[in-house]
Amino acid sequence: MKYCSACGDEVHLIIPDGDNRERYVCPACGVVHYQNPKVVTGCIPEWEDKILLCKRAIEPRHGLWTLPAGFMENQETSLEGAAREAMEEANADMRDMELYCVFSIPHINQMYTMYRGSLHQGKASPGRESLDVRLVTEQEVPWDKLAFPVIIATLQWYYQDLKKGSFNTHYGEIRKTPEMKFEIERFS
Amino acid sequence: MKYCSACGDEVHLIIPDGDNRERYVCPACGVVHYQNPKVVTGCIPEWEDKILLCKRAIEPRHGLWTLPAGFMENQETSLEGAAREAMEEANADMRDMELYCVFSIPHINQMYTMYRGSLHQGKASPGRESLDVRLVTEQEVPWDKLAFPVIIATLQWYYQDLKKGSFNTHYGEIRKTPEMKFEIERFS
Repeated sequence: MKYCSACGDEVHLIIPDGDNRERYVCPACGVVHYQNPKVVTGCIPEWEDKILLCKRAIEPRHGLWTLPAGFMENQETSLEGAAREAMEEANADMRDMELYCVFSIPHINQMYTMYRGSLHQGKASPGRESLDVRLVTEQEVPWDKLAFPVIIATLQWYYQDLKKGSFNTHYGEIRKTPEMKFEIERFS
Repeated sequence: MKYCSACGDEVHLIIPDGDNRERYVCPACGVVHYQNPKVVTGCIPEWEDKILLCKRAIEPRHGLWTLPAGFMENQETSLEGAAREAMEEANADMRDMELYCVFSIPHINQMYTMYRGSLHQGKASPGRESLDVRLVTEQEVPWDKLAFPVIIATLQWYYQDLKKGSFNTHYGEIRKTPEMKFEIERFS
């Protein structure tokens, strides 16, 4: 950020009075431009003993597999956003969704909300951002070709709960370690 | 938004190629300025048979009662943000927090994550944004003086679960009705 989106003047990075963090502040009009994490919302589409995965047609992680998910938009709920992303990425009509897990990923300023729900009639096909979509059993999940640590963490919880026969809502945090690996801390 | 924060030129509100929503786009440098919901994160501080409420010293809802909560910051997790807000607003040291409920509030482009946890030694005092803080029993909750519908919804769930003797993680949506009342839809 270099310019004020309200008046066009150059912004300064300062700690405003009564605050304790640096913010972009406009010296001309006084607006403080707060920058906050974004929410990514998605789901696990279920059909019989399978779940739906999408092969990414876009960067990052082009060609790797993921659950349908994307940035939550203004004026929608995180549940509506998860259903919209499933439709956009996999022409998947989601029903009876429940919140399944929430992740904070502080190094990329993101929060994930992942729902679990029924893929209507088991029908799906690739949307514009997918090269392929596939219904897979646990044995068919391509663990070494999943796109993001948050997808691995979500599916690990999912299959643990499936074995237990009961699904709780989970909260976890994903951090990058100095060795560029990822560490997943499970809180509930 | 009137000006591009990257180059200072005037932005246009258009639907970019391959998108289906209007975005602020800079005709000079091409940057698309996405606008997304913000996360508010907070908690229910518990001590013996009481919870901690804060009387707001700031607008909106100056003088009404709330749970400690505020905007999640970049580089922090929603759990860390909830603990930070409790410290800032009530000098409250939170321990053993668990995710308790998640709300979407689409008409104000917000998502709430509310945790439940132990208020260390039951100690609290007003921070800069609070006029007062108070440990209250269920009978002492000032239901008609709570600051926001999301606080009412959170506490309704809390006392229901407390009576049941078990706490689940909940997801709900809060919408404004045409009569300017609020409607809370509970999904889980």
